[in-house]
Amino acid sequence: MEKLTIVKIGGNIIDSPELLKSFLTDFSNLAGPKMLIHGGGKLATELSGKLGLIPKMIDGRRVTDSETLDVVCMVYAGLINKRLVAALQAQNCPTIGLTGADGRSLLAEKRPSRPIDYGFAGDVKMVNVPFFQNLLNHKLTPVCSPITADANGQLLNTNADTIASEIAKALSGKYEVHLIYCFEKKGVLADVLDENSVIPKIDPNFYSLLKLDGKVHSGMIPKLDNAFESLKKGVSRVIITGNLQSTGTVIEL
Amino acid sequence: MEKLTIVKIGGNIIDSPELLKSFLTDFSNLAGPKMLIHGGGKLATELSGKLGLIPKMIDGRRVTDSETLDVVCMVYAGLINKRLVAALQAQNCPTIGLTGADGRSLLAEKRPSRPIDYGFAGDVKMVNVPFFQNLLNHKLTPVCSPITADANGQLLNTNADTIASEIAKALSGKYEVHLIYCFEKKGVLADVLDENSVIPKIDPNFYSLLKLDGKVHSGMIPKLDNAFESLKKGVSRVIITGNLQSTGTVIEL
Repeated sequence: MEKLTIVKIGGNIIDSPELLKSFLTDFSNLAGPKMLIHGGGKLATELSGKLGLIPKMIDGRRVTDSETLDVVCMVYAGLINKRLVAALQAQNCPTIGLTGADGRSLLAEKRPSRPIDYGFAGDVKMVNVPFFQNLLNHKLTPVCSPITADANGQLLNTNADTIASEIAKALSGKYEVHLIYCFEKKGVLADVLDENSVIPKIDPNFYSLLKLDGKVHSGMIPKLDNAFESLKKGVSRVIITGNLQSTGTVIEL
Repeated sequence: MEKLTIVKIGGNIIDSPELLKSFLTDFSNLAGPKMLIHGGGKLATELSGKLGLIPKMIDGRRVTDSETLDVVCMVYAGLINKRLVAALQAQNCPTIGLTGADGRSLLAEKRPSRPIDYGFAGDVKMVNVPFFQNLLNHKLTPVCSPITADANGQLLNTNADTIASEIAKALSGKYEVHLIYCFEKKGVLADVLDENSVIPKIDPNFYSLLKLDGKVHSGMIPKLDNAFESLKKGVSRVIITGNLQSTGTVIEL
């Protein structure tokens, strides 16, 4: 099977012009079919602030009321997605920006309002594999923003890490999928205060130990859970790293 | 050749939930390959206002400074485009939302800053015909927002009427293209105060007369110029109407 590289970049890379520029060069240089999934970053929070909306978070997840949904659609699908698409295009990396609604690339469902009501937050229910295959066959690199829609046309705010792992799992029947979570640290750190304490490999046993010791930062837990789940569902390789030139932390079963 | 219907909707339809709903139902019901190009509407002006930006217009065209470019990218490519895509998708009309940057569907150039500096305003230089053909062959309806990019990845604000006519002209070698400008009036009016004074047909001679008499509203002149230009460049039929169920004004050579 052909190798497919799926890269997710976090908000802190998007927010730093320097990190972003270097990331985009590295990403353009990746050989073979590839996809980019991007998160949000502080632009949405800034815009919400300017509009007088007060961001509401539960367990690190944004609660998406109707006004916040408009803001994230504008910032994620409009501004960040199109900036990334145009910048990659200019580096001779032919790209196409997408939300889950476009080509119904992802069909989502609104998250149930119990036990916690996250508002217009969506969970991915279906990945449109033939649609992505068609784009990749035409040498187009999909750039996916963390916005989806349900079957009724309701737009929904959706976690970018989850989108990356859902797409990776769904495409693993067709490609040898390498999933890379790229964020502002060099990898999963043994000591959050020491940037150079990158753990080279984490398997499920070691992960259990790390959690018992309270050494894994709470924001890292859903990322690692996604990583293990992806590997179990057929993804060939998952790494968590700070840039595309270093291996960071390899997640293994 | 197969018929392709290209519909442009103006901001006043987008701004009216009632007009928009009925438009989207009619558009979904159109048989055969089709495309939708949408303008902006008052949402961008409203957001600019909330952010304290003062809209600047010259000859009916928005002057696009850097902050305004962000606003129109957010509103046109993020909010309006994705709402339209998701709403059509829910009506079983498979759609994909695009800016010119996506798939390099349109390559634009920044308008020269002389004689008038319109800021980040773009003019379409190239339509990616194979890209649109691929989408249409896969039964996907492109939904194009009035945002483009130049070869350097600079996003640009671009007139939606012009995008519609440029795409229509470029695809007229491959399809029998019908171009429909759909706006808040029932067609080109002989008397702007009389909603029912729709002129059924306008040819170049009649157009000259209307201009001489000062009967054509200034906002209508670029639309009519685009219409005649499209017909000269191979588009089969151009109409200006208030909805897809009536013929409105037919433009003829």
